[in-house]
Amino acid sequence: AGDAEAGKAKSGMCVACHGTDGNSLAPMYPNLAGQHAQYLEGAIKAYRDGQRTGGTAVMMAPMAANLSDQDAADLAAYFSQQKLKQK
Amino acid sequence: AGDAEAGKAKSGMCVACHGTDGNSLAPMYPNLAGQHAQYLEGAIKAYRDGQRTGGTAVMMAPMAANLSDQDAADLAAYFSQQKLKQK
Repeated sequence: AGDAEAGKAKSGMCVACHGTDGNSLAPMYPNLAGQHAQYLEGAIKAYRDGQRTGGTAVMMAPMAANLSDQDAADLAAYFSQQKLKQK
Repeated sequence: AGDAEAGKAKSGMCVACHGTDGNSLAPMYPNLAGQHAQYLEGAIKAYRDGQRTGGTAVMMAPMAANLSDQDAADLAAYFSQQKLKQK
């Protein structure tokens, strides 16, 4: 299972687009806060493994390229536990 | 731009997994409530156009296959305006 504290420590490269707390900085980037960890973990691996292409995969595939399965789980745990800011 | 009311009327096929209000029924399915419309619209089109593969694309690609660009925008508008239920 993912470790949210470890995920936070690994999240540096995520925050330019997704925000330090998973509330993204521009509407083309998805919010991660409050999303299911299982979904996020699968998304990271799908980018890494070349199963998600098109759109922002041009950014996400290289971001994910060197992440281990544990890294993916940790990042997913961290962002899923953040609070989505809603209108 | 998307029309949320039209999107709601078109959302019948989405709700078995994503919920009537975009709060998904199982953690393998992403919440859509509170997500950016621009991101959701792009995701639907990426599934439709075969750019997102792997994982649940086996379900999403056929769901999206017959959606127009306007359908994608309408659905994105609807789900983005729903409220995410947070712990």
